[in-house]
Amino acid sequence: MPFNYPGGKSFTSNKPATNNKLSKIKPVSYGKRGMTLEEDVNDTNNYYLSRGLAVIHKKPTPVQIVQVDYPKRSAAVIKEAYFKQASTTDYNGVYKSHYIDFEAKETKNKTSFPLQNFHLHQINHMKQVMEQGGLAFVIIRFSTKEETYLVHGHSIFKWWNRMECGGRKSVTYEEITKEGYFIKTGLTPRLHYLPIIDQWLLQPVLQKESEE
Amino acid sequence: MPFNYPGGKSFTSNKPATNNKLSKIKPVSYGKRGMTLEEDVNDTNNYYLSRGLAVIHKKPTPVQIVQVDYPKRSAAVIKEAYFKQASTTDYNGVYKSHYIDFEAKETKNKTSFPLQNFHLHQINHMKQVMEQGGLAFVIIRFSTKEETYLVHGHSIFKWWNRMECGGRKSVTYEEITKEGYFIKTGLTPRLHYLPIIDQWLLQPVLQKESEE
Repeated sequence: MPFNYPGGKSFTSNKPATNNKLSKIKPVSYGKRGMTLEEDVNDTNNYYLSRGLAVIHKKPTPVQIVQVDYPKRSAAVIKEAYFKQASTTDYNGVYKSHYIDFEAKETKNKTSFPLQNFHLHQINHMKQVMEQGGLAFVIIRFSTKEETYLVHGHSIFKWWNRMECGGRKSVTYEEITKEGYFIKTGLTPRLHYLPIIDQWLLQPVLQKESEE
Repeated sequence: MPFNYPGGKSFTSNKPATNNKLSKIKPVSYGKRGMTLEEDVNDTNNYYLSRGLAVIHKKPTPVQIVQVDYPKRSAAVIKEAYFKQASTTDYNGVYKSHYIDFEAKETKNKTSFPLQNFHLHQINHMKQVMEQGGLAFVIIRFSTKEETYLVHGHSIFKWWNRMECGGRKSVTYEEITKEGYFIKTGLTPRLHYLPIIDQWLLQPVLQKESEE
């Protein structure tokens, strides 16, 4: 279990969540607990991009545009639009020639992660990615505990299937700590997840058996 | 020149361009000439996805959201938003484990393709992708001629550099036919570009020297 770093201490900051359009839509407040998961992931990806370590971007929020005005001498203004459900995951890109695809979700729950955080088409998309030889995973944060885990697509599919077969609609905290890989939070980058990917690429079927 | 198929005949259709939100913003009319390049590419990617051949999606149009209303008992309505410049290319995904990244552009010009169709950050993004081991390219259509070409990132970078060094601001039709790979248009899929990718993956430095 090389990536279950000891001590899940998070980097905290009082910097306000500016420049995040989504924060206007779904206000997320963690008081002094620091950044949202999305901000941490974006910050980390920017760090990776600036160092030439990986090229991973967040996709724009899908919007259904209904009405656009064209005022004279100024830019087009969207006057009516609606949020659309995404048909894929939020993040994708390339790392050491490998296609990387993931979703980042946080929960305030302390004991479990609700699977309703995903949509069926996102699960299907991740399966398609894996079948095509890409690497699909999710980053899950228990925000109250300040703990973030990288969870391989195979684990997500297993838990999703369990739900579809009538089992529980969530994944317990213990299951995630057992199958997921703890991501140490730091200053730069805030959420250094590439070392875990390196392990997966070296040992594609790594299952942390040593713990079982 | 294994992919310069003879006869650049296009599939034409009178089906109206429905379900394409962008067509409301920038109306594109080709009369009886058939679909826009974007529609052809999306249709082709849907075909690839449904057959399990590749997982390639168009990214949503980036929008800067300024004001959102939350009417009671109904969905949130975006009341003010603006189009943002994309920071990456429009399409990416995974094909046979390889990361694929591209932009699709069409011109009504008959003799050249203006490089102002790209933004500097799109060129930089394609360079970052190539440096990380991904495959970046563009699909260029001369809509008046009904001819579509797959052009490798290396060719685009070369022409872009020429412009930056004071050279011409466009690429001649002859240059594109020489360095690009003609994509045969058909019914299903409409724009079968994967066979060209296969050649590139087999021979990464393929330069069509035989023609020179």
